[in-house]
Amino acid sequence: MNYILKNENAIYYECAYSCDNALYLKLGSEAFFITDARYAIEAKQSVNGAEVIIEKELYTKANSLIEKSKIKKLKYDPKEWSLFHFEKLREGLQIRFNPVADFSHKKRLIKTKEELEILKVAATMGAEAFDKLAQTINKHGFKNSEEILTYMAKTVLSKYGKYELSFDPIVAVAENAAKPHALPTSKILDNKDLLLVDAGLKYKRYCSDRTRTVYAKSGFSFDTTQKFKKKKIQRAYDIVLKAHDNAISKARSGMKAKKVDALTRDIITKAGFGEYYVHSTGHGVGLDIHEMPYIASKSDTVIEDGMVYTIEPGIYIPDEFGIRIEDMVAMVEGRAVVL
Amino acid sequence: MNYILKNENAIYYECAYSCDNALYLKLGSEAFFITDARYAIEAKQSVNGAEVIIEKELYTKANSLIEKSKIKKLKYDPKEWSLFHFEKLREGLQIRFNPVADFSHKKRLIKTKEELEILKVAATMGAEAFDKLAQTINKHGFKNSEEILTYMAKTVLSKYGKYELSFDPIVAVAENAAKPHALPTSKILDNKDLLLVDAGLKYKRYCSDRTRTVYAKSGFSFDTTQKFKKKKIQRAYDIVLKAHDNAISKARSGMKAKKVDALTRDIITKAGFGEYYVHSTGHGVGLDIHEMPYIASKSDTVIEDGMVYTIEPGIYIPDEFGIRIEDMVAMVEGRAVVL
Repeated sequence: MNYILKNENAIYYECAYSCDNALYLKLGSEAFFITDARYAIEAKQSVNGAEVIIEKELYTKANSLIEKSKIKKLKYDPKEWSLFHFEKLREGLQIRFNPVADFSHKKRLIKTKEELEILKVAATMGAEAFDKLAQTINKHGFKNSEEILTYMAKTVLSKYGKYELSFDPIVAVAENAAKPHALPTSKILDNKDLLLVDAGLKYKRYCSDRTRTVYAKSGFSFDTTQKFKKKKIQRAYDIVLKAHDNAISKARSGMKAKKVDALTRDIITKAGFGEYYVHSTGHGVGLDIHEMPYIASKSDTVIEDGMVYTIEPGIYIPDEFGIRIEDMVAMVEGRAVVL
Repeated sequence: MNYILKNENAIYYECAYSCDNALYLKLGSEAFFITDARYAIEAKQSVNGAEVIIEKELYTKANSLIEKSKIKKLKYDPKEWSLFHFEKLREGLQIRFNPVADFSHKKRLIKTKEELEILKVAATMGAEAFDKLAQTINKHGFKNSEEILTYMAKTVLSKYGKYELSFDPIVAVAENAAKPHALPTSKILDNKDLLLVDAGLKYKRYCSDRTRTVYAKSGFSFDTTQKFKKKKIQRAYDIVLKAHDNAISKARSGMKAKKVDALTRDIITKAGFGEYYVHSTGHGVGLDIHEMPYIASKSDTVIEDGMVYTIEPGIYIPDEFGIRIEDMVAMVEGRAVVL
């Protein structure tokens, strides 16, 4: 099977190294990692199972390697390639280019034992960072804006820049939590406000992802036992937690992803909040923060041992509040294990 | 002229608003801004001169608007489009798609008065942040790693997350400065080390960009008067500064960009360091940190009033040290004015 990859994580998966300007080319039994001079030293030290080629013009080089190889067909992912770069790659070649969307993501659906171990460490570090963040917010966070709190979250999650983050943390106070992808505002966190934090870090390039919603009374922690003052919020919280726990305890290998989605959605819908649960139950996590499998109401993907994904039901009442509780799970011996 | 844009900054330039999932479609006298429900409120408040359309399937919607419009030809930038999304856009349409690389960047070559004012503020804030960073490093930075120093630079430049950065700051100590795009390492900053910092922030979405190389003796500042202990370093520094000052004082509207490049390169080459000046003199700065004009040895672009670009000559001696001094200039009444 001949294929070419351009996405940084897709390439890393093939040869244990990547950078922001590289191509990976598999031509029969041969493999090539092509990058520019800036990455020569690192690439030669780290690339596994592929010949490292240093070239200024990556696409021209790939083109000539393809031509020399006499292959007839080459698989590529049309989501990875701009028309501009694809034109450069293809120029003058007479072979058949075979577009297969997401073929690297499909390969990466089932995690290896090593990947599961790394993801476990990432998730554990993410959970520890939430504990640390609670301490930081209790000490310095109240009376600060979501913007400042987001910065605190970045600082704590990244350990002062030592680790990369999976994504920009979401830190939302009170009614701002009703927006699932809230951007930080100047809104101030007061004692006894609702506080939602969705954040993760990368360990050995693998992502963690976690959300907690808490009653931020001085001394609060990010555990899932929360007591809100307003009954409506407490009721929504209890339902989201029940949905979250239900999916984790009942998800099984062999189920379709839409069945796992129903494990959260049915509970929330029956409680009358269905219209306020505006997203899917979860998404795969690995080198990318969003990858397969997608745990969605229309997904026929069959869940299998070795898959890693999030369970993150939510209820969002516009202008009032939002609740979301998220954990990462791995399918092990047929069941979902929280990472 | 009919065209479609997908790049966030290109769209912002057209209608004063953008987000990470949007299309901008200009069909004769009509213009459309298409985005999803997450951005509905902000888009309706902020988009200027285009009809805001909220749709989950952006590409399908653009496709149907194009079909309804009866246009025959549509310009697009092949660098902006993945094959996957372009297929969705084009599906079933019989019109001619006209690829023009960088057409938004070409429009943005000459800055308006308002843009120049914003860029001046961005550059001023960037310079002030360097002063603040010198204080921070003098107080807390010595004996810390490049990684920690990079985090300090991010903190200071962003004012604790209030402003976005133009790019991840480069903070390089001693021989690490010999890599023009050094990534931060665990190398420690000691008293009297050479220290190179290249960083910028965004103000109203416009970028600043600045580099200073200093003899980091306790109490140092980021001004350009630096006294290094090693003669070879001092000589290289003086030459880079001379090249930098020469280009700023002699650049003129009407010159070709390669002539401006020669204003730095000739000085460095004559001093015998030509082979160690491994990049171009500079690049345009605006909504993107790298845009037109490129001040390079082969560029025939004619410099005009209203262009904004960097002057950033450098000398990089592998395994020894690197020097770079960078400022942003705007062409005003025929001459380069430092922003």
